[in-house]
Amino acid sequence: MELAIAQPADFHVHLRQGALSELVTPHVRKGGFSTAYVMPNLKPPITSTDQALAYKAALEKIEPNVEFLMTLYLSPELTPDEIRKAKQAGIVGVKSYPRGVTTNSDGGIESYEAYYPVFEAMQEVDMVLNLHGEIPSDSAHASLFSLFSFNNIHVLNAEPSFLPHLHKTHSTFPRLRIVLEHATTRAAVEAVKACGDTVACTITVHHLELTVDDWAGQSWNFCKPVAKYPDDRQALRDIVKEGHPRFFLGSDSAPHPPHNKSVSTPSCGCAAGIYTSPILLPLTAHILESFGALDRLEDFVSTFGRKFYKIPANGNKVLLTRATHGATFSIPEEGYTLKDESAIPFWAGRRINWTLSE
Amino acid sequence: MELAIAQPADFHVHLRQGALSELVTPHVRKGGFSTAYVMPNLKPPITSTDQALAYKAALEKIEPNVEFLMTLYLSPELTPDEIRKAKQAGIVGVKSYPRGVTTNSDGGIESYEAYYPVFEAMQEVDMVLNLHGEIPSDSAHASLFSLFSFNNIHVLNAEPSFLPHLHKTHSTFPRLRIVLEHATTRAAVEAVKACGDTVACTITVHHLELTVDDWAGQSWNFCKPVAKYPDDRQALRDIVKEGHPRFFLGSDSAPHPPHNKSVSTPSCGCAAGIYTSPILLPLTAHILESFGALDRLEDFVSTFGRKFYKIPANGNKVLLTRATHGATFSIPEEGYTLKDESAIPFWAGRRINWTLSE
Repeated sequence: MELAIAQPADFHVHLRQGALSELVTPHVRKGGFSTAYVMPNLKPPITSTDQALAYKAALEKIEPNVEFLMTLYLSPELTPDEIRKAKQAGIVGVKSYPRGVTTNSDGGIESYEAYYPVFEAMQEVDMVLNLHGEIPSDSAHASLFSLFSFNNIHVLNAEPSFLPHLHKTHSTFPRLRIVLEHATTRAAVEAVKACGDTVACTITVHHLELTVDDWAGQSWNFCKPVAKYPDDRQALRDIVKEGHPRFFLGSDSAPHPPHNKSVSTPSCGCAAGIYTSPILLPLTAHILESFGALDRLEDFVSTFGRKFYKIPANGNKVLLTRATHGATFSIPEEGYTLKDESAIPFWAGRRINWTLSE
Repeated sequence: MELAIAQPADFHVHLRQGALSELVTPHVRKGGFSTAYVMPNLKPPITSTDQALAYKAALEKIEPNVEFLMTLYLSPELTPDEIRKAKQAGIVGVKSYPRGVTTNSDGGIESYEAYYPVFEAMQEVDMVLNLHGEIPSDSAHASLFSLFSFNNIHVLNAEPSFLPHLHKTHSTFPRLRIVLEHATTRAAVEAVKACGDTVACTITVHHLELTVDDWAGQSWNFCKPVAKYPDDRQALRDIVKEGHPRFFLGSDSAPHPPHNKSVSTPSCGCAAGIYTSPILLPLTAHILESFGALDRLEDFVSTFGRKFYKIPANGNKVLLTRATHGATFSIPEEGYTLKDESAIPFWAGRRINWTLSE
């Protein structure tokens, strides 16, 4: 069996910087994608148009055959004027990170009201707001203030607790295009569905597969947002299977050096992040097929996201072949290496039923 | 400051077998305890009086100065006659493991009705039933049968989902002494409180400290049952602070070789279990003090458990000294080693404020 998919687009990917970037940036194409929506959480974060353009040039030098869609990191430095400048320069979106919840998010936001002038400008010039929708964990005040929403916050309710902020921002800026990134809960799916056409949602391929049991005691399956309960995974699968046009792939592919993913000592936890870029399209086909949604593959990886982002496909098709019995593709257990950098993908050592055709 | 504690008793401990047992059994005393209620989940499990007595003799050979209270593993081999024989031989309890939820539980139970003749005999001779109160995870059927209680089961609701079984067993055998082991949820605390005086509950010291965020990406804090939400931890702390006589310490100290606690490859998750024996009394003092319950230390580690189990203290006191500034006790980062076996305790590398006096 062979499938022809209109130019896939990954609407959420971490391409890092330095040597790690040299390793992973070509993996976008290796995984079957030629459009990449690039996250700005570098050190230092990408907070200006000039930085974003320099980063884009660096990525294009590594991999000239990918279309890189660039983003800015929402921070107090960002002004309405900078938004207009960014739009002119072709920058597509602005990413918001709550403080401290994921890799390099120490400078993340704490409250949205302060950014309303920026959002106003974004709405005016039609830039996209990308939300990492989690409230930072707060276990300390669970008993003292349990009636208030910012307490008893932990990795499993961090996303549902964020959703009122999505609703408020959407109500205040109804024409602002907003993407709730890497949704993991039934509550998030319902919240996005209930919004107007300007609000969409990315879903990662690993969140279509994992539940909390999979990362309990297994740090390689640990990412933020963490995979949730079986019922939440079912809601993600159902919305993909339904083919709702405002739900589409953003891989959140996030490579870390292997020693940061292993936990070897009691004093050192592992980095959050799951790396899927180099196997992304075959893996997505495999996992969608596993729950009966293979017929939604093109919608999920190309059509729906491109329509929301207004980024048309180029007419090229990517061909996927389903393995005949015994000829499945083995995800390399040892990962991928370039000079001193390496990264091990999700499901390393396992076999999947789909491969890219030349 | 110095505290004198009447002979502490650990009412739930794993002393393993072979070389690992030689390493960890003396750690009961090292941690300030001289009574240990010993779990039967060995390979093969302890299912008969003769096995339990042989295991007891092996433990006494390693450490003659600890009182070992022995248990049997609930399994189809166990008969009412064997219960009467066990009681005569001084065996104190019978431990029930749901199939597959923790170390060496592959032979665990699936339904209690089949064991009613055994429970009847236990009630008659006054043996204690120890329940590992978790339903095995089941993510596969989340959507198909979501109205039924055995679906959408994961590591975080596995304990609340078990509580109807506690209630039913207690209702059917109201004079049978039952201990719900290592409670981790507010629901479990409430369920035990609502039962009669024949139902008690052990609490580990690590569950008084950890929440889900602490084991997310950190396998050394991973155990079963997993630590739950901040509100659940608060319920555990509150019941200890209140001094409810049916809630007392069972450490569930569970050593594993360090390479089984580290996660080094995507295909190999880590073993569930947290090792606290060698630091147990000082750690418990430190953690109870951290939430204002130091005045309940003796009740929690000695009085309440001994009363429920009818195992009187011997009159000896253990002395604990609170460190003066700068003289805190450092938990050895490298752990403890004997021949080829080693085990690294909870909080390795951290400092605590209490030490045992000679």
